Amino acid sequence: MQKVLNEFKKFNISFLNKKEDIYPYAYDTAPVKDSAVLPFCVVFPKNTQDVQKIVKIASKYDLNIVPRGAASCHTSGCKPNNKSIVLHLSLMDKIIEINKEDLTARMQPYVTVGHLQKEVEKMGLFFPPDPSNLAVSTVGGAVALSSGGPRTFKYGTTKDYVINLEVVLASGEIMHTGSNVAKNVTGYNLTQLFTGSEGGLGVITEITFKLIPKPEKRRVTLCYFDSIIDAAAAVNNVINALIVPSTLDLLDKNTLSTIKKFNPVEILEEKEAALLIEIDGSDAKIKEDNEKLLSVLEQSNAVKIIQSKNDDENEEIWKARRSAYACVAKLKPNVATEDVVVNRSKIVPLVEGIQKICKKYNMMVCIMGHAGDGNIHPNFALNFDNKKDKENFEKIKKELFQLAINLGGSLSGEHGIGSEKKPYLDMAIEPVALKYMKEIKKLFDPNDIMNPNKMF
Amino acid sequence: MQKVLNEFKKFNISFLNKKEDIYPYAYDTAPVKDSAVLPFCVVFPKNTQDVQKIVKIASKYDLNIVPRGAASCHTSGCKPNNKSIVLHLSLMDKIIEINKEDLTARMQPYVTVGHLQKEVEKMGLFFPPDPSNLAVSTVGGAVALSSGGPRTFKYGTTKDYVINLEVVLASGEIMHTGSNVAKNVTGYNLTQLFTGSEGGLGVITEITFKLIPKPEKRRVTLCYFDSIIDAAAAVNNVINALIVPSTLDLLDKNTLSTIKKFNPVEILEEKEAALLIEIDGSDAKIKEDNEKLLSVLEQSNAVKIIQSKNDDENEEIWKARRSAYACVAKLKPNVATEDVVVNRSKIVPLVEGIQKICKKYNMMVCIMGHAGDGNIHPNFALNFDNKKDKENFEKIKKELFQLAINLGGSLSGEHGIGSEKKPYLDMAIEPVALKYMKEIKKLFDPNDIMNPNKMF
Repeated sequence: MQKVLNEFKKFNISFLNKKEDIYPYAYDTAPVKDSAVLPFCVVFPKNTQDVQKIVKIASKYDLNIVPRGAASCHTSGCKPNNKSIVLHLSLMDKIIEINKEDLTARMQPYVTVGHLQKEVEKMGLFFPPDPSNLAVSTVGGAVALSSGGPRTFKYGTTKDYVINLEVVLASGEIMHTGSNVAKNVTGYNLTQLFTGSEGGLGVITEITFKLIPKPEKRRVTLCYFDSIIDAAAAVNNVINALIVPSTLDLLDKNTLSTIKKFNPVEILEEKEAALLIEIDGSDAKIKEDNEKLLSVLEQSNAVKIIQSKNDDENEEIWKARRSAYACVAKLKPNVATEDVVVNRSKIVPLVEGIQKICKKYNMMVCIMGHAGDGNIHPNFALNFDNKKDKENFEKIKKELFQLAINLGGSLSGEHGIGSEKKPYLDMAIEPVALKYMKEIKKLFDPNDIMNPNKMF
Repeated sequence: MQKVLNEFKKFNISFLNKKEDIYPYAYDTAPVKDSAVLPFCVVFPKNTQDVQKIVKIASKYDLNIVPRGAASCHTSGCKPNNKSIVLHLSLMDKIIEINKEDLTARMQPYVTVGHLQKEVEKMGLFFPPDPSNLAVSTVGGAVALSSGGPRTFKYGTTKDYVINLEVVLASGEIMHTGSNVAKNVTGYNLTQLFTGSEGGLGVITEITFKLIPKPEKRRVTLCYFDSIIDAAAAVNNVINALIVPSTLDLLDKNTLSTIKKFNPVEILEEKEAALLIEIDGSDAKIKEDNEKLLSVLEQSNAVKIIQSKNDDENEEIWKARRSAYACVAKLKPNVATEDVVVNRSKIVPLVEGIQKICKKYNMMVCIMGHAGDGNIHPNFALNFDNKKDKENFEKIKKELFQLAINLGGSLSGEHGIGSEKKPYLDMAIEPVALKYMKEIKKLFDPNDIMNPNKMF
């Protein structure tokens, strides 16, 4: 396959193909190292035209394309095979325009979500989606997976902010999925078809987001409950009181004690559950919401309520929450996170069901998640080199997904399907819908060269 | 074709096929009576299974399906041809469930938007999309066109609230596009592909919307300016002051004087432009926003500011605004409305450009629209029986669309494409995107029996 590399050289496209250089690109965050395979090579396009050339080369030589941002995805969404050209987008990292008047931002895919947020916030604007790993996760990945984060309850996920995508298709064609106006019903909504399609329909080379004005202030409340039932009831009571918090996150006892273990913060680790609630807006709005919130929480059997007084204290509480996954990772050699979603009214049976399943298999689980959205993340501490752990994890996953489906829910709220959940997709999607999804994939990518073996 | 009618009889499906009965179904709101053609028949399905049977019958006898709600669409979106079975959905008008805890509502397609709003508001919930004709327009139509309305700036359009659709496909298959959970990235986003697809991919037989808590109060401000430039600048100043009004509507001089002509309300008809601004939220929030708003408007050269003091006064101002289209309709035998969209920074050149085009053709135009979204509706008063008026209107339309496109905008923000804008679609959508849209249509509807000749 020297020919392929020669083509890259001809077009002045950087690449890596030595075993020692490409080894890191066999993985993403999903803990599945035993099935990892080295890609054919890794390339570094500088612009859309480079991507176009690379896609045409892949097509010509019967190779496939695996787009890669920060690879912080939990579902092996950018796992290559031995015929893969890993399309490392790191050179396409520019914000092209932030337009304050139009409330839009246009950028290349490798801009990190955190960087975008900082840049727009300097101008008084706001990009709400905030995956926990926002310091590294890229906007391209965020769009590919329609990632969310704790602020989804009030602000929605990435899909609610994408208005146009430039994509390179398997044919090598460059296509714009929409236009750079926020309100548009001209033609089918290809933008939303591509958002969350996990790179299977084309490579995202440019993104236009709509933005909103930045809320002036934020206030974080951490409150504890003696049971998951009380905490879930409190979530409903907050919403019924017409408070719309940006965040309504739930943490179970194991999560609390695990955070406490590795953080020098005040955490009541003996409590069964906690809610992390963030409200935002103007001073007056926060004052009003906070009075209502305190009254609701007291009536909802909160046993302890801690509130931030300023931005530093907000950050301290958030740092502890955001560290949860990393803390679970320190308990055992590996950590695996899941991402099921149910309606809010089903949170108690979901959390209790997860605890029951994990008890059966003697698996340590820390349950956290976005209770406002019914999107729950069980984080499992385990050792994938231990055969029993690995087998048990597979069984737990299947039972977990069945539980979510039985409760009227689905397999993923924000992490996506990738190759990890691919075997379970037919539990969540009926045959006829699955058939048409596969046909759409085939329409855009007849030879299956775009991130193959993900989702379907 | 008596055979077809016999099949309907066999399945106990009501139908109309006498000329005098089906004459009204040759039209929708779009003023194009000379090209109207009687459909083959009109049928009244009672449920999804009836729709399935009718679609199979259409397929068997080489007929096509034209779904019809209130037919209040402005783009001939439900115009039949002589092989059409008009699928009148009037018997499928039930709200199936409103779930307060999950903030969702599930219903059949013929529920009117206004009825849905009233029912959810009784429970303290809110369905924001509010097309001007909400008293008659149905949720099925709202989803088919992703309709918007004045509250889009803060709350988004119908597409932002659809989470699942039950559809009957051309094959007769029943498919669910998503699931009844608000946050979901399991599989491709078929829900958003079908939303706004104007009945071309399948018949919508059931809809699940997500809802939000109802804002406590509303306050309407009507303010006047000596120029469109001042009004457009005021829109930006409001947004820069971090006020997020639910409505930021613009009315030009012709619109003001036309409303005044037919309404006993206080309107300063001699002013060049007015903004109708609605803020909503709690008492404290409204008080705070209103103080900021008044200060911004004064600094933005507003020459007169009128504010509502209570709900009755809100309604009075809104009634005048909502009557605008009907008032224009009284000026001449016909009225035609258009629906272009640009970025907010391009509103002044768009409005001035429309005025210039209409002056050239001596056409009376009333310009109104959702300035916050850059979505402008020029309403034309004309006589379609007058050959000159008709010819001029066709020329104006083409120049209007070219103007919007030249300003980086698009053909429709909320009315859709239908058969009226079909000839202009390639001005707004590049050939490669258009090709794939048509392929998607072909994938779901290979024999083009689903609302043919709309959009493509």
